[in-house]
Amino acid sequence: MKRPDHDDRTEPACSIARTLEVVGDKWTLLILREAALANVTRFADFKDRLGVAPDILSARLGTLVDAGVMTKQPYREPGSRTRFSYHLTPAGEELRLILAALQQWGDENRPRAVGPSVVRRSADLGRPVRVAFVDDTDTTVPTDAVKFIRTASYPS
Amino acid sequence: MKRPDHDDRTEPACSIARTLEVVGDKWTLLILREAALANVTRFADFKDRLGVAPDILSARLGTLVDAGVMTKQPYREPGSRTRFSYHLTPAGEELRLILAALQQWGDENRPRAVGPSVVRRSADLGRPVRVAFVDDTDTTVPTDAVKFIRTASYPS
Repeated sequence: MKRPDHDDRTEPACSIARTLEVVGDKWTLLILREAALANVTRFADFKDRLGVAPDILSARLGTLVDAGVMTKQPYREPGSRTRFSYHLTPAGEELRLILAALQQWGDENRPRAVGPSVVRRSADLGRPVRVAFVDDTDTTVPTDAVKFIRTASYPS
Repeated sequence: MKRPDHDDRTEPACSIARTLEVVGDKWTLLILREAALANVTRFADFKDRLGVAPDILSARLGTLVDAGVMTKQPYREPGSRTRFSYHLTPAGEELRLILAALQQWGDENRPRAVGPSVVRRSADLGRPVRVAFVDDTDTTVPTDAVKFIRTASYPS
Protein backbone atom coordinates (compact mmCIF):
# COMPACT_ATOMS: atom_id res chain seq x y z
CA MET A 1 0.00 0.00 0.00
CA LYS A 2 1.60 3.27 -1.10
CA ARG A 3 1.35 6.23 1.21
CA PRO A 4 2.08 9.23 -1.03
CA ASP A 5 0.41 11.48 1.52
CA HIS A 6 2.65 10.66 4.46
CA ASP A 7 4.72 13.25 6.22
CA ASP A 8 8.27 13.41 4.88
CA ARG A 9 9.45 15.20 8.01
CA THR A 10 8.81 12.17 10.21
CA GLU A 11 10.21 9.59 7.79
CA PRO A 12 13.89 8.73 7.41
CA ALA A 13 15.39 9.99 4.15
CA CYS A 14 17.05 6.60 3.71
CA SER A 15 14.84 4.13 1.84
CA ILE A 16 16.60 1.22 3.56
CA ALA A 17 15.70 2.65 6.96
CA ARG A 18 12.07 3.11 5.86
CA THR A 19 11.90 -0.52 4.76
CA LEU A 20 13.49 -1.67 8.02
CA GLU A 21 10.80 0.24 9.94
CA VAL A 22 8.41 -2.32 8.44
CA VAL A 23 10.47 -5.49 8.16
CA GLY A 24 13.59 -4.85 10.28
CA ASP A 25 12.90 -7.50 12.86
CA LYS A 26 13.87 -11.17 12.77
CA TRP A 27 10.40 -12.52 13.66
CA THR A 28 8.75 -10.24 11.13
CA LEU A 29 10.99 -11.50 8.36
CA LEU A 30 10.38 -15.11 9.34
CA ILE A 31 6.61 -14.48 9.34
CA LEU A 32 6.95 -12.97 5.87
CA ARG A 33 9.05 -15.95 4.77
CA GLU A 34 6.20 -18.31 5.73
CA ALA A 35 3.63 -16.07 4.01
CA ALA A 36 5.59 -15.32 0.85
CA LEU A 37 7.42 -18.57 0.24
CA ALA A 38 5.17 -21.22 1.82
CA ASN A 39 1.72 -19.58 1.43
CA VAL A 40 0.94 -19.74 5.14
CA THR A 41 -2.09 -17.61 6.06
CA ARG A 42 -3.55 -18.81 9.38
CA PHE A 43 -2.46 -17.52 12.76
CA ALA A 44 -2.20 -21.07 14.17
CA ASP A 45 -0.04 -22.19 11.24
CA PHE A 46 2.39 -19.28 11.68
CA LYS A 47 2.56 -20.10 15.39
CA ASP A 48 3.21 -23.82 14.90
CA ARG A 49 5.73 -23.46 12.08
CA LEU A 50 7.79 -20.73 13.73
CA GLY A 51 7.41 -21.77 17.36
CA VAL A 52 6.77 -18.11 18.20
CA ALA A 53 4.90 -16.93 21.29
CA PRO A 54 1.28 -15.96 20.44
CA ASP A 55 1.60 -12.43 21.82
CA ILE A 56 4.71 -11.72 19.75
CA LEU A 57 3.10 -13.22 16.64
CA SER A 58 -0.05 -11.18 17.18
CA ALA A 59 1.94 -7.95 17.62
CA ARG A 60 4.08 -8.56 14.52
CA LEU A 61 1.10 -9.47 12.33
CA GLY A 62 -0.66 -6.33 13.55
CA THR A 63 2.32 -4.21 12.56
CA LEU A 64 2.37 -5.80 9.10
CA VAL A 65 -1.35 -5.09 8.65
CA ASP A 66 -0.89 -1.47 9.79
CA ALA A 67 1.98 -1.11 7.33
CA GLY A 68 -0.17 -2.26 4.42
CA VAL A 69 1.93 -5.36 3.83
CA MET A 70 -0.76 -7.83 4.91
CA THR A 71 -4.53 -7.82 5.22
CA LYS A 72 -6.43 -9.58 8.01
CA GLN A 73 -9.49 -11.60 7.07
CA PRO A 74 -11.96 -13.50 9.22
CA TYR A 75 -12.75 -17.12 8.44
CA ARG A 76 -14.87 -19.70 10.20
CA GLU A 77 -14.78 -23.46 10.07
CA PRO A 78 -17.92 -25.46 10.91
CA GLY A 79 -18.40 -25.74 14.67
CA SER A 80 -15.55 -23.31 15.43
CA ARG A 81 -15.40 -19.68 16.42
CA THR A 82 -14.31 -17.04 13.95
CA ARG A 83 -10.58 -17.01 13.38
CA PHE A 84 -8.29 -14.83 11.27
CA SER A 85 -5.99 -15.33 8.33
CA TYR A 86 -3.36 -12.98 6.96
CA HIS A 87 -2.67 -12.35 3.28
CA LEU A 88 0.06 -10.42 1.50
CA THR A 89 -0.89 -7.24 -0.34
CA PRO A 90 0.90 -6.37 -3.61
CA ALA A 91 3.49 -4.44 -1.56
CA GLY A 92 3.90 -7.56 0.57
CA GLU A 93 4.35 -9.76 -2.50
CA GLU A 94 7.19 -7.47 -3.60
CA LEU A 95 9.05 -8.41 -0.42
CA ARG A 96 9.83 -11.75 -2.14
CA LEU A 97 12.79 -10.03 -3.77
CA ILE A 98 14.24 -9.10 -0.36
CA LEU A 99 13.60 -12.58 1.02
CA ALA A 100 15.23 -14.19 -2.03
CA ALA A 101 18.27 -11.90 -1.71
CA LEU A 102 18.64 -12.96 1.95
CA GLN A 103 18.20 -16.62 0.95
CA GLN A 104 20.75 -16.41 -1.85
CA TRP A 105 23.38 -14.76 0.38
CA GLY A 106 22.91 -17.48 3.01
CA ASP A 107 23.24 -20.24 0.41
CA GLU A 108 26.38 -18.70 -1.08
CA ASN A 109 28.11 -17.50 2.08
CA ARG A 110 26.73 -19.83 4.77
CA PRO A 111 26.22 -23.03 2.74
CA ARG A 112 25.16 -26.27 4.38
CA ALA A 113 26.77 -29.56 3.37
CA VAL A 114 23.34 -30.95 2.39
CA GLY A 115 22.72 -28.02 0.04
CA PRO A 116 19.92 -25.44 0.00
CA SER A 117 16.57 -26.44 1.49
CA VAL A 118 14.67 -24.25 -0.97
CA VAL A 119 15.48 -23.39 -4.59
CA ARG A 120 13.95 -20.81 -6.90
CA ARG A 121 12.60 -21.67 -10.36
CA SER A 122 10.66 -19.81 -13.03
CA ALA A 123 7.03 -20.96 -12.97
CA ASP A 124 6.75 -21.35 -16.74
CA LEU A 125 10.08 -22.83 -17.84
CA GLY A 126 11.33 -24.27 -14.55
CA ARG A 127 14.71 -22.55 -14.92
CA PRO A 128 16.89 -21.71 -11.88
CA VAL A 129 16.28 -18.14 -10.75
CA ARG A 130 18.62 -15.82 -8.85
CA VAL A 131 18.46 -12.23 -7.63
CA ALA A 132 20.70 -9.85 -9.60
CA PHE A 133 21.25 -6.25 -10.56
CA VAL A 134 19.81 -5.39 -13.99
CA ASP A 135 19.82 -2.11 -15.89
CA ASP A 136 16.92 -0.50 -17.77
CA THR A 137 17.64 -2.63 -20.84
CA ASP A 138 17.28 -5.77 -18.66
CA THR A 139 21.01 -6.45 -18.95
CA THR A 140 22.57 -7.91 -15.80
CA VAL A 141 25.16 -5.74 -14.06
CA PRO A 142 27.86 -7.26 -11.77
CA THR A 143 27.52 -6.27 -8.11
CA ASP A 144 30.87 -4.46 -8.12
CA ALA A 145 29.84 -2.46 -11.20
CA VAL A 146 26.88 -0.78 -9.47
CA LYS A 147 27.34 2.74 -8.11
CA PHE A 148 25.11 4.20 -5.42
CA ILE A 149 24.77 7.92 -6.10
CA ARG A 150 23.34 10.59 -3.80
CA THR A 151 20.60 12.76 -5.25
CA ALA A 152 19.71 16.37 -4.41
CA SER A 153 17.31 15.05 -1.75
CA TYR A 154 20.11 13.36 0.20
CA PRO A 155 20.14 14.95 3.67
CA SER A 156 22.96 17.44 4.08
CA MET B 1 34.06 -16.04 4.03
CA LYS B 2 32.63 -19.47 3.36
CA ARG B 3 32.51 -21.91 6.19
CA PRO B 4 32.10 -25.28 4.45
CA ASP B 5 33.33 -27.02 7.60
CA HIS B 6 30.68 -25.69 9.94
CA ASP B 7 28.34 -27.98 11.79
CA ASP B 8 25.03 -28.42 10.02
CA ARG B 9 23.34 -29.58 13.21
CA THR B 10 23.72 -26.19 14.87
CA GLU B 11 22.75 -24.10 11.84
CA PRO B 12 19.19 -23.37 10.76
CA ALA B 13 18.20 -25.22 7.59
CA CYS B 14 16.67 -21.99 6.29
CA SER B 15 19.17 -19.86 4.36
CA ILE B 16 17.21 -16.72 5.23
CA ALA B 17 17.55 -17.50 8.94
CA ARG B 18 21.30 -18.09 8.52
CA THR B 19 21.70 -14.73 6.81
CA LEU B 20 19.65 -13.04 9.53
CA GLU B 21 21.99 -14.52 12.16
CA VAL B 22 24.61 -12.24 10.61
CA VAL B 23 22.66 -9.19 9.45
CA GLY B 24 19.25 -9.50 11.15
CA ASP B 25 19.57 -6.41 13.28
CA LYS B 26 18.70 -2.84 12.38
CA TRP B 27 21.99 -1.30 13.53
CA THR B 28 23.99 -3.98 11.74
CA LEU B 29 22.19 -3.26 8.48
CA LEU B 30 22.72 0.48 8.88
CA ILE B 31 26.44 -0.08 9.55
CA LEU B 32 26.60 -2.20 6.40
CA ARG B 33 24.75 0.50 4.48
CA GLU B 34 27.45 3.04 5.40
CA ALA B 35 30.22 0.56 4.54
CA ALA B 36 28.75 -0.78 1.30
CA LEU B 37 27.08 2.29 -0.15
CA ALA B 38 29.09 5.21 1.26
CA ASN B 39 32.53 3.55 1.69
CA VAL B 40 32.74 4.39 5.39
CA THR B 41 35.58 2.50 7.12
CA ARG B 42 36.53 4.31 10.34
CA PHE B 43 34.93 3.64 13.70
CA ALA B 44 34.50 7.38 14.40
CA ASP B 45 32.83 7.92 11.02
CA PHE B 46 30.32 5.10 11.60
CA LYS B 47 29.58 6.57 15.03
CA ASP B 48 29.08 10.12 13.79
CA ARG B 49 27.01 9.23 10.73
CA LEU B 50 24.70 6.81 12.52
CA GLY B 51 24.52 8.48 15.92
CA VAL B 52 24.98 5.06 17.49
CA ALA B 53 26.34 4.49 21.00
CA PRO B 54 30.03 3.43 20.88
CA ASP B 55 29.46 0.19 22.82
CA ILE B 56 26.68 -0.91 20.45
CA LEU B 57 28.78 0.03 17.42
CA SER B 58 31.78 -1.84 18.78
CA ALA B 59 29.72 -4.96 19.47
CA ARG B 60 28.07 -4.94 16.04
CA LEU B 61 31.36 -4.41 14.19
CA GLY B 62 32.88 -7.26 16.22
CA THR B 63 30.04 -9.56 15.18
CA LEU B 64 30.53 -8.62 11.52
CA VAL B 65 34.28 -9.35 11.77
CA ASP B 66 33.60 -12.70 13.46
CA ALA B 67 31.13 -13.54 10.71
CA GLY B 68 33.72 -12.90 8.00
CA VAL B 69 31.76 -9.99 6.55
CA MET B 70 34.29 -7.32 7.54
CA THR B 71 37.99 -7.25 8.42
CA LYS B 72 39.45 -4.98 11.09
CA GLN B 73 42.66 -3.12 10.28
CA PRO B 74 44.81 -0.82 12.41
CA TYR B 75 45.76 2.60 11.12
CA ARG B 76 47.62 5.48 12.69
CA GLU B 77 47.60 9.15 11.86
CA PRO B 78 50.62 11.31 12.78
CA GLY B 79 50.51 12.26 16.46
CA SER B 80 47.55 10.00 17.22
CA ARG B 81 47.22 6.60 18.81
CA THR B 82 46.48 3.53 16.72
CA ARG B 83 42.88 3.36 15.60
CA PHE B 84 40.87 0.79 13.62
CA SER B 85 39.07 0.72 10.33
CA TYR B 86 36.63 -1.87 9.01
CA HIS B 87 36.50 -3.16 5.45
CA LEU B 88 34.03 -5.42 3.66
CA THR B 89 35.22 -8.87 2.59
CA PRO B 90 33.92 -10.32 -0.72
CA ALA B 91 31.02 -11.89 1.24
CA GLY B 92 30.35 -8.42 2.68
CA GLU B 93 30.39 -6.83 -0.76
CA GLU B 94 27.71 -9.32 -1.85
CA LEU B 95 25.40 -7.85 0.79
CA ARG B 96 24.93 -4.89 -1.59
CA LEU B 97 22.24 -6.92 -3.31
CA ILE B 98 20.27 -7.24 -0.06
CA LEU B 99 20.74 -3.54 0.75
CA ALA B 100 19.62 -2.53 -2.74
CA ALA B 101 16.54 -4.78 -2.48
CA LEU B 102 15.63 -3.08 0.82
CA GLN B 103 16.26 0.35 -0.74
CA GLN B 104 14.17 -0.40 -3.81
CA TRP B 105 11.21 -1.66 -1.75
CA GLY B 106 11.31 1.50 0.37
CA ASP B 107 11.42 3.74 -2.69
CA GLU B 108 8.52 1.91 -4.33
CA ASN B 109 6.33 1.29 -1.32
CA ARG B 110 7.31 4.08 1.09
CA PRO B 111 8.15 6.88 -1.37
CA ARG B 112 9.01 10.37 -0.20
CA ALA B 113 7.62 13.40 -2.01
CA VAL B 114 11.17 14.62 -2.69
CA GLY B 115 12.09 11.35 -4.36
CA PRO B 116 14.83 8.84 -3.52
CA SER B 117 17.93 10.14 -1.73
CA VAL B 118 20.15 7.56 -3.43
CA VAL B 119 19.90 6.05 -6.92
CA ARG B 120 21.74 3.12 -8.48
CA ARG B 121 23.59 3.37 -11.78
CA SER B 122 25.90 1.07 -13.73
CA ALA B 123 29.50 2.28 -13.34
CA ASP B 124 30.37 2.00 -17.02
CA LEU B 125 27.25 3.20 -18.86
CA GLY B 126 25.51 5.19 -16.11
CA ARG B 127 22.22 3.38 -16.69
CA PRO B 128 19.59 3.08 -13.92
CA VAL B 129 19.98 -0.24 -12.09
CA ARG B 130 17.36 -2.22 -10.18
CA VAL B 131 17.26 -5.52 -8.33
CA ALA B 132 15.32 -8.24 -10.16
CA PHE B 133 14.87 -11.96 -10.54
CA VAL B 134 16.79 -13.40 -13.51
CA ASP B 135 17.06 -16.97 -14.76
CA ASP B 136 20.19 -18.85 -15.84
CA THR B 137 19.97 -17.33 -19.33
CA ASP B 138 20.04 -13.83 -17.71
CA THR B 139 16.40 -13.27 -18.69
CA THR B 140 14.41 -11.29 -16.12
CA VAL B 141 11.54 -13.13 -14.44
CA PRO B 142 8.55 -11.27 -12.91
CA THR B 143 8.31 -11.60 -9.11
CA ASP B 144 4.99 -13.41 -9.32
CA ALA B 145 6.44 -15.93 -11.79
CA VAL B 146 9.07 -17.21 -9.36
CA LYS B 147 8.36 -20.44 -7.49
CA PHE B 148 10.12 -21.36 -4.26
CA ILE B 149 10.50 -25.14 -4.22
CA ARG B 150 11.54 -27.33 -1.27
CA THR B 151 14.43 -29.71 -1.88
CA ALA B 152 15.14 -33.08 -0.26
CA SER B 153 17.12 -31.27 2.44
CA TYR B 154 14.07 -29.29 3.62
CA PRO B 155 13.49 -30.25 7.28
CA SER B 156 10.62 -32.69 7.67
